[in-house]
Amino acid sequence: MRVAVDAAGGDKGPDVVVAGAVAGARRFGVGLLLAGPESDVRRALSRVDLSGVDYEVRDAPDLIAMDESPAQAVRRKTRSGISVALDAVKRGEAGAMVSAGNSGAVMAAALMMLGRIPGVDRPAIASPLPSRQGYSLVLDLGAVTDPKPQSLVQFAQMGTVYAQRVMGIVNPTVGLLSNGEEATKGNALVQEAHALLAVAPGINFHGNVEGRDIPRGVVDVIVTDGFTGNVALKVAEGAAALVGEAIRQELTSSLLNKMAAAILKPAFARAKKRIDYAETGGALLLGTNGVVVIAHGRSNVTAMQNAIGVGARAHNGGVTDAIAAALLELQSAVA
Amino acid sequence: MRVAVDAAGGDKGPDVVVAGAVAGARRFGVGLLLAGPESDVRRALSRVDLSGVDYEVRDAPDLIAMDESPAQAVRRKTRSGISVALDAVKRGEAGAMVSAGNSGAVMAAALMMLGRIPGVDRPAIASPLPSRQGYSLVLDLGAVTDPKPQSLVQFAQMGTVYAQRVMGIVNPTVGLLSNGEEATKGNALVQEAHALLAVAPGINFHGNVEGRDIPRGVVDVIVTDGFTGNVALKVAEGAAALVGEAIRQELTSSLLNKMAAAILKPAFARAKKRIDYAETGGALLLGTNGVVVIAHGRSNVTAMQNAIGVGARAHNGGVTDAIAAALLELQSAVA
Repeated sequence: MRVAVDAAGGDKGPDVVVAGAVAGARRFGVGLLLAGPESDVRRALSRVDLSGVDYEVRDAPDLIAMDESPAQAVRRKTRSGISVALDAVKRGEAGAMVSAGNSGAVMAAALMMLGRIPGVDRPAIASPLPSRQGYSLVLDLGAVTDPKPQSLVQFAQMGTVYAQRVMGIVNPTVGLLSNGEEATKGNALVQEAHALLAVAPGINFHGNVEGRDIPRGVVDVIVTDGFTGNVALKVAEGAAALVGEAIRQELTSSLLNKMAAAILKPAFARAKKRIDYAETGGALLLGTNGVVVIAHGRSNVTAMQNAIGVGARAHNGGVTDAIAAALLELQSAVA
Repeated sequence: MRVAVDAAGGDKGPDVVVAGAVAGARRFGVGLLLAGPESDVRRALSRVDLSGVDYEVRDAPDLIAMDESPAQAVRRKTRSGISVALDAVKRGEAGAMVSAGNSGAVMAAALMMLGRIPGVDRPAIASPLPSRQGYSLVLDLGAVTDPKPQSLVQFAQMGTVYAQRVMGIVNPTVGLLSNGEEATKGNALVQEAHALLAVAPGINFHGNVEGRDIPRGVVDVIVTDGFTGNVALKVAEGAAALVGEAIRQELTSSLLNKMAAAILKPAFARAKKRIDYAETGGALLLGTNGVVVIAHGRSNVTAMQNAIGVGARAHNGGVTDAIAAALLELQSAVA
């Protein structure tokens, strides 16, 4: 299996993307199809060890900036790394696509070129977030700011499939993010979605969960609208960073503290790795006909490497086909 | 000035509430009006040092459980600690009211007994949350799950007054919580509110801010709907706790680590204090005719003590009158 990579996307340039992709290919045993301006990609490739890595370069000279209007950029720049990589997925030449570029453009292009899985009204961005129990899958993290209640049911269904196929959980529990555990809590959207989720087939619905239940890992899958999910993700990242910073400042406040802190450096590094929100490498766009991984714009080599793994596991788990089958079942149960 | 305290409210019982209230009265130089079942309150008082503290006990035999339906409980139980304390504020016998009891009941009773400040459609729950810069005031944290865009403008106005009068910031910046910084980002509510805030008088509008900007302290006041605000608050608390827990586990993974960690214990305690979401003690219900402090149900003695301080500062800053004046100005500017 090959993973198609938007080699031009991301804040750090082709060198970092290509180095991460090659490391990921080796680690997860996949081939690469690198789409970007050919000379840039070849230069980046010349700087890394390629032994044992199956790869192909596909020229994609058009560049889409991180702040460019997604729909317009995708329509005008048909030979961008994003479009060329997605085209490879569409043709079956690659089993997954990874981009750290303009995430709006990735979503727009994926919808346009791959289309939606039948039964999915709106694709969602899903990512496992660190919790006390390991990880909880949270979706949507920003694709749909004002979803309909039915979309949240589809998110629950897609998240269930992902948790089964990729996280290996047989009967994943699903929580609906709200401002209180009681079924009566929530805004209008959540109250309507709660009623639908309570009777939806194929979903092991736990009920409402609160913000603190994400890091607590109370359920396996947490569904929410893309506005709230995006705020929650960024609050979690920011709060974790704030704690780390406060501790760092206090620990270097005296020479004795500095010495003790030096002893503990490896322990801190392990703790950081456990709760690093970038460690998972990339979020999946669930609901399009093909595996699409949206990596952080500021992805480093490790994050890109892990993004390749996210794509490989989703492909190997047959996530796209399993979602299609699950939603067909959901629809026939409702009809 | 006296602070009226719902002595029966909270998960930990009258002993903790009364001990915290007495400590707060001494620390912030205010008197107390303690409302609760008289024998319970007197017993709690007998267990603390009362020297130099001006206090009065007012019998309030009705108990409202934490999970009781707020509106019903308030209507039926007219002699609860919540109602008796609010009544003292209404009569001008107390300058502020503090409760760690059923927060829905506190809100319902405050609306019913004190009424809204003219120009306020819906009161909001506001609390300073820890940030890299100290604190940012965030509102609404859970009073209104589906506000109208105009309500967010009122929240901005009320938050500005609070930041000026209590936090001492001359010209506080206000951010609108969204899923991206650009003015085009946000759900339907945020996009409409953004347009209103951009032209609202008396508000130093910074534009949209993201979830991570709360812990970063990018602006002084952050406005959001009560659903998103509640999720954000609880995610921040949970993520901070998760980081602390991961570090604690790693630091005790060997004898050498344990020894180094022991040296650093005071430094960890200082860091924890800096970012403790309970440290502020209580949230203010902004928009009712009188100062109402909603403390965490699980408030300990320190949190109750700090809640008294929140009430005292809001009263001394003349927050209620200043909000009334600001909203009058806002309304005449719009008209």
